[in-house]
Amino acid sequence: MSSITVSQNFRAIDVIRTKRDGGELSRGEIESLVNAYTGGGIPDYQVSAWLMAVVLRGMTRAETAALTDAMLRSGEVLDLSSLAARKVDKHSTGGVGDKTSLVLAPLVAAAGVAVPMISGRGLGHTGGTLDKLEAIPGFNVNLPVAQFLRVLETCGCAMIGQTAEIAPADRKLYALRDVTGTVESPYLICASIMSKKLAEGIDALVLDVKTGSGAFMKNEKDAAFLAELMVETGERMSKEVIALITDMDQPLGCMIGNALEVVEAIEVLRGGGPEDLRRLCLELAGWMLHLGGVAGTVAEGKRQSERLIASGKALDKFRQMVELQGGDPRTVDHPKKLPRAQHMIMSFSPQNGYLASLECEQVGTACVILGGGRERKEDAVDPAVGIVLHKKVGDAVSVGEPLATIYYNAESRAAQARQLFEQSCHIADSPVAEMRPLIHRVIGRRPAPSGVKN
Amino acid sequence: MSSITVSQNFRAIDVIRTKRDGGELSRGEIESLVNAYTGGGIPDYQVSAWLMAVVLRGMTRAETAALTDAMLRSGEVLDLSSLAARKVDKHSTGGVGDKTSLVLAPLVAAAGVAVPMISGRGLGHTGGTLDKLEAIPGFNVNLPVAQFLRVLETCGCAMIGQTAEIAPADRKLYALRDVTGTVESPYLICASIMSKKLAEGIDALVLDVKTGSGAFMKNEKDAAFLAELMVETGERMSKEVIALITDMDQPLGCMIGNALEVVEAIEVLRGGGPEDLRRLCLELAGWMLHLGGVAGTVAEGKRQSERLIASGKALDKFRQMVELQGGDPRTVDHPKKLPRAQHMIMSFSPQNGYLASLECEQVGTACVILGGGRERKEDAVDPAVGIVLHKKVGDAVSVGEPLATIYYNAESRAAQARQLFEQSCHIADSPVAEMRPLIHRVIGRRPAPSGVKN
Repeated sequence: MSSITVSQNFRAIDVIRTKRDGGELSRGEIESLVNAYTGGGIPDYQVSAWLMAVVLRGMTRAETAALTDAMLRSGEVLDLSSLAARKVDKHSTGGVGDKTSLVLAPLVAAAGVAVPMISGRGLGHTGGTLDKLEAIPGFNVNLPVAQFLRVLETCGCAMIGQTAEIAPADRKLYALRDVTGTVESPYLICASIMSKKLAEGIDALVLDVKTGSGAFMKNEKDAAFLAELMVETGERMSKEVIALITDMDQPLGCMIGNALEVVEAIEVLRGGGPEDLRRLCLELAGWMLHLGGVAGTVAEGKRQSERLIASGKALDKFRQMVELQGGDPRTVDHPKKLPRAQHMIMSFSPQNGYLASLECEQVGTACVILGGGRERKEDAVDPAVGIVLHKKVGDAVSVGEPLATIYYNAESRAAQARQLFEQSCHIADSPVAEMRPLIHRVIGRRPAPSGVKN
Repeated sequence: MSSITVSQNFRAIDVIRTKRDGGELSRGEIESLVNAYTGGGIPDYQVSAWLMAVVLRGMTRAETAALTDAMLRSGEVLDLSSLAARKVDKHSTGGVGDKTSLVLAPLVAAAGVAVPMISGRGLGHTGGTLDKLEAIPGFNVNLPVAQFLRVLETCGCAMIGQTAEIAPADRKLYALRDVTGTVESPYLICASIMSKKLAEGIDALVLDVKTGSGAFMKNEKDAAFLAELMVETGERMSKEVIALITDMDQPLGCMIGNALEVVEAIEVLRGGGPEDLRRLCLELAGWMLHLGGVAGTVAEGKRQSERLIASGKALDKFRQMVELQGGDPRTVDHPKKLPRAQHMIMSFSPQNGYLASLECEQVGTACVILGGGRERKEDAVDPAVGIVLHKKVGDAVSVGEPLATIYYNAESRAAQARQLFEQSCHIADSPVAEMRPLIHRVIGRRPAPSGVKN
């Protein structure tokens, strides 16, 4: 851990007032604030006033980078210099049915790029990578750092949850933001994400910033603002960062629910899976391989990724990681060994027409109601339950045709979840005039074709 | 105490978010927030985030009145219905050399209007009525409510400090605002002042909102905004409130320092005293008598006040109050019995010309340095020290002529105070072209000529 410095002249009240009045804080002031708070030197009530001032006054790019840096250095920064390969990670801002991490970590590792992935749990209506991994019997996401590094060295990828050593300032600040209405600030979101990701000791980062009805950033403008902020913050910290603004106006793929999403991720690693999920995985993998220095261009990275899937090497890597992290590797080849719900009901189309939209947040919430996510932080998650979509936006539907299958364990929840799912479906008489693109924009400076940091 | 209600569905986080996003809170939400906070049901860190959102988003008039009302009802509201006279008070937003309260309470009481005055201590560079009263040997500002009411019944006026029973929400909120950079909001200042004043059980209130270099509101626009807010808040709570925007660009009167200000207040009650102080006292008294229903017009109230001074009745009332509150009444007739500083030094004009300005906050700070005010809340105040001005803005000065006498007890502080005082004096070669008026504006609906509440 780097040395904790709090300037002798530091007074929290001055920092609060400066931000309240729209002024810019110095790097030293921000560092002192973060360090004093993490060390218990200033009380919650001063920091929450400061956080609200940040929400309403914003931050400059320099302040955002200083905050990210101070939070990053509040704890351990992994030293991965012993690995010869470049280290690249991906982070998604969260959505429904987003199981790309499960595909990308082994796929990119199979190409020779190290992927030290530290992920989170489901939040609100969105799923979390850790919850999905834990659907695999035995899989341990709570490895100590030393063991995490051993898995990474052995197989090229490893997937764990946040440890107490990584960015403790973020954990303390996030808990305070959660109860003081100060979560919704792009500057604070950026610092929270980037401090944790850069503490992984990576060289480059691909950000998947979601936009649409199932994303935290409902409109593209907000998503692009956050993406630009994160890219610039990464660059200021000498990391290569690229952001893709991708669609989350309907669930990604067809399966929503922890074990179901493992099944669908394995399908993609086998060369199958739904078209949108497969395409997004290849796009993100293309960028990761390119930034990881093993592909001269993104297109070349995508072709390499396709070959690694076709040859079975990506799936082999997944099987290896599952085994190294204590999971049952037989589930990879026999997905029926994953937890399965006891019951199912179907939802049918009430009319002929076209699926015009799927209110994505409602679909995610329906899965939470089934027990697939948490209503409160302390809730346990049921890995088996979930929803399988039989139709996606744009598809033609006939009256009585199944729209989705709902997998459940508790009768009382199934009806409520189905009702919410059916409310989320909008069926129109005419075909959908304009489909939303899967990938809206790419934000960031394209690295030199060699993939070497410019 | 009225019943404390916190709505069952109340969630502090919702109230914080609504204000953060610029929305308007309902009376019930504000009441629940204040009551829950006063009762310990919500933590400081949520309230400080909310306070910062209020500072930056503001409040509607209805919200401001609801906050004032909830703070007022957080504690005891004095019941003065047993007094036949109308109850009228005056509140000043704070300045340097402002000893009007000491004149007004006995003067207005002598006219048959009851003045139940609850005051504060010095804050920053400004003086406080309680500190001035305590310069009178034996004077007790900490009377229990029952004794306060007895003094009020006997003599028509009484002057004490805030009790634990009055507006406890304000005490708790003010302590939090002080350390979270959330003092500077006209809405919060209004609710703090008005909740305490209206808890006195008064019928009408005259506000003296100071503006200029020695006031908290440096410019007239801010002072007028606060004044309008307080007047409207009072009206929404069915009280008659009028505000005078008065000048605080130089000290009021000539004496600054606790015992010195008692001396000068007694001079005014004897029919003397400096012209500006005397004029402001008469103006405020005129309004208090008018709102108190004993004068048909403000002008008539002023004339009555002049007569009460000339007849000695105002001074008699002061002597009576001092005695009833445990003070030595001989000081009233023999001001030399008040605490006196051991030493004095003078400050002389370095040139011929005209006193163009006196930086009023600096003069106040010079008095604090002498020990006449507090640098920290726990500091004791020296009642004897202070500054007597021999020149006021606009006066002609000759080289070597005394500008002020500085009364001190600690040698080390005298030099520093004199230096600061001399920095505060600006002497120009030519006469001051335009003098600032003593009374800038009157804000509020003038009551009907009968003085009956309209």
